[in-house]
Amino acid sequence: MIKNKSLKKFPHDHLLGIEGLSPPDLNYLLDLSDYFAMHLDKKNTEKFKYLKNKICINLFFENSTRTRTSFELAGKKLGADMLNISVASSAIKKGETLIDTAMTLNAMQPDVLVVRHQDAGAVKLLSEKVNCGVINAGDGPHEHPTQALLDALTIKKRKGKISGLKIAICGDIMHSRVARSNIHLLNTLGAEIRVIGPATLIPKNIESLGVKVFYEMKSGLANVDIIIMLRLQLERMSGSFVPSIREYFRFYGLDREKLKFADANALILHPGPMNRGVEIDSELADDLDRSAIFEQVQMGVAVRMACLKTIVENKAKNGK
Amino acid sequence: MIKNKSLKKFPHDHLLGIEGLSPPDLNYLLDLSDYFAMHLDKKNTEKFKYLKNKICINLFFENSTRTRTSFELAGKKLGADMLNISVASSAIKKGETLIDTAMTLNAMQPDVLVVRHQDAGAVKLLSEKVNCGVINAGDGPHEHPTQALLDALTIKKRKGKISGLKIAICGDIMHSRVARSNIHLLNTLGAEIRVIGPATLIPKNIESLGVKVFYEMKSGLANVDIIIMLRLQLERMSGSFVPSIREYFRFYGLDREKLKFADANALILHPGPMNRGVEIDSELADDLDRSAIFEQVQMGVAVRMACLKTIVENKAKNGK
Amino acid sequence: MIKNKSLKKFPHDHLLGIEGLSPPDLNYLLDLSDYFAMHLDKKNTEKFKYLKNKICINLFFENSTRTRTSFELAGKKLGADMLNISVASSAIKKGETLIDTAMTLNAMQPDVLVVRHQDAGAVKLLSEKVNCGVINAGDGPHEHPTQALLDALTIKKRKGKISGLKIAICGDIMHSRVARSNIHLLNTLGAEIRVIGPATLIPKNIESLGVKVFYEMKSGLANVDIIIMLRLQLERMSGSFVPSIREYFRFYGLDREKLKFADANALILHPGPMNRGVEIDSELADDLDRSAIFEQVQMGVAVRMACLKTIVENKAKNGK
Repeated sequence: MIKNKSLKKFPHDHLLGIEGLSPPDLNYLLDLSDYFAMHLDKKNTEKFKYLKNKICINLFFENSTRTRTSFELAGKKLGADMLNISVASSAIKKGETLIDTAMTLNAMQPDVLVVRHQDAGAVKLLSEKVNCGVINAGDGPHEHPTQALLDALTIKKRKGKISGLKIAICGDIMHSRVARSNIHLLNTLGAEIRVIGPATLIPKNIESLGVKVFYEMKSGLANVDIIIMLRLQLERMSGSFVPSIREYFRFYGLDREKLKFADANALILHPGPMNRGVEIDSELADDLDRSAIFEQVQMGVAVRMACLKTIVENKAKNGK
Repeated sequence: MIKNKSLKKFPHDHLLGIEGLSPPDLNYLLDLSDYFAMHLDKKNTEKFKYLKNKICINLFFENSTRTRTSFELAGKKLGADMLNISVASSAIKKGETLIDTAMTLNAMQPDVLVVRHQDAGAVKLLSEKVNCGVINAGDGPHEHPTQALLDALTIKKRKGKISGLKIAICGDIMHSRVARSNIHLLNTLGAEIRVIGPATLIPKNIESLGVKVFYEMKSGLANVDIIIMLRLQLERMSGSFVPSIREYFRFYGLDREKLKFADANALILHPGPMNRGVEIDSELADDLDRSAIFEQVQMGVAVRMACLKTIVENKAKNGK
Repeated sequence: MIKNKSLKKFPHDHLLGIEGLSPPDLNYLLDLSDYFAMHLDKKNTEKFKYLKNKICINLFFENSTRTRTSFELAGKKLGADMLNISVASSAIKKGETLIDTAMTLNAMQPDVLVVRHQDAGAVKLLSEKVNCGVINAGDGPHEHPTQALLDALTIKKRKGKISGLKIAICGDIMHSRVARSNIHLLNTLGAEIRVIGPATLIPKNIESLGVKVFYEMKSGLANVDIIIMLRLQLERMSGSFVPSIREYFRFYGLDREKLKFADANALILHPGPMNRGVEIDSELADDLDRSAIFEQVQMGVAVRMACLKTIVENKAKNGK
């Protein structure tokens, strides 16, 4: 049983993004995630019953091993029945609209839909048409809220806090939903955020989100406590965004040399999957003292347990 | 517990089609479906145990989001273990025959196989080679019995009866397993069936199934209580069957104007996925007073629960 | 409960291959498999709880209906939660390395990974990077240990023993992981092994594994008790390995004529999926007196139950 009375209700039917969530909202989810993370760490094999007889549908319009598997595991650890639907085997191919797909699944009365879609805003649109809870598992370049939560949980567990930390997010900021969700979350909880990358990969007016922009690693990493490296999408490696992989790694790939610019205890995060030798040096990625990359995956299961439990229970309270 | 003593045993090992089922057979399945539908509607979250420790394999040689998901949900709500096999990941690609695939799965001793296949008759052939129960989830243009049952259940719940209703089935009758199963079922239960469509999409001798044929909507829809719109397969939209989408919609697409030909309380059904603007007007499809399209999906889960329970239990009684 | 005190602990963390396993190791797995096979045969529907709350991930880099389904069923019959990951929907496509995929899944803390991969040695490499148990479900042309175990169990149940039997393995020995695992297992348990096939499909120095080589069926099958026919990979049917399907069947395909060379009670095995009319005559494959092909599939579920239980419990004992 969860007895921590400081836990406050999460006042939203869906988890569509980090933007708009308050510090208490975020802390509610992070505290509950931490509770599950501690439980998992004890290798306590007793399964939870919170979502017994509840039905969760993973509706993935884009492929994803880690996110889909993480949600599936999280749901099963809470006792839910999990169904997977991937676009490859979907009616979309037959010309059905996103909304009809959503309403069809809704008519089957699941308790929560976990949705990944290639278009920004598609998950929100879908949430307006259904009467079950919806969790955004990534929508185009827009948001990926559970990734930001698991990053925050990893940081909290390693550094004991988020407020006041200097955090650099490096690489392809332009196309990254992870960057966007992280900026919203870490800013809301009081961190100082910097983004670092080539000008072609930094969106204009990104400063309006409350970040400082750096175009090279030396000044950008100066004294930072946390370095979040982003995946460089393979399809952008050649062409107008990046001159070549070798050039990219030389200027923006994290290695031991560049790491020296940061705080001596700086921690490295990466949402995965990694391009070793592109955005991060392979040997550094495997250094468990500096890199929390696999710890992030572990926290991911705990965060998704917290989000699934919260959204399903909110829906049950609200009826319909 | 199901205490309705009027329920009679369903005297078949498999559910391969509607053709050949008697009114008591159909009413047995519909009554049991209705029982499950009422249960689901109460949002009673207690799962049934009828199929606890039973194994159901969804064997789909054609893709389908809605039917596969509906069966998977239905099985899980009865406590069964559900396995999905899709042709894309199947040994068929390695040259194995349908029968060998079936016998291989049979040797793993499942309790029921739910099979969709692109060829008419394939599911029956398969059922002769295995000693578990088999449910046809659609075989080519032949039959789709659970779709006909869910249509009938939707009609019964909205209109209180089937016998005596005037029902029009509109569109591509030629290639539609839904049309075929519906004609058998609704005729057996005493409805008056009409089929409407262009001559190129109406099979010859269809009158022998006990339907009246109409080649235009005005006379076809006159005074009907139920309109079942069929999906126009995209691959038939151009070519010798249909001159153009615009023409097709003008003559056979259901809109407010054509709906006026029908009874003032006529109900619209569609098996989905819909081609909005092709066989049905988009705004009309969303009118919950006239369209029962998403109610059909909801009934689908209840119908599949009834069919799975019935076929699995019959098999257990018959041994082997 | 399993009370057979003769059962000895299996002293390995993973099941990566048959090579290197001792007779007691093999007999431990075969005895436990036999226990499960007898249980399944009684149609005892009570599910086991051995793996309750345990998580098994099927990680398949190659497609497989039968092996994946067999493991999934086996795990479910033991009460485990089963997750399927296929390469088609995997991050591998995004350029992630095998090791990163493995470590990512490992960070989600499953209890066992069942892995099929197209490259020999890939499963062993992966097992060195994770702290859960790993079962090899086939790695390139290297090993397929559960197939060899199910072949052995089938033989033991039909012939009462393995030691002293004359066993012929026929066909594409060169590319067959099944052949390799079978040679190791059957040799270790005291059978006399022959391999038969065209010179182009027999690896050099295969005699060093303790087999006799025959290039034609008449002398090769003389007096054998067991004939294991191998699948001819379709992609090798034309080209430098085999002149034509017709020629191959004439010289190496098993039919009634060639069967006469063997012992009068010789039993036929095939790992499936079969190419009827290529490596085996279709009518002969269906002769249940001579062919144990579908019995092998049935034993496969029992063997995978034994392997999953053993590896998961070993991991739990060893901690981490």
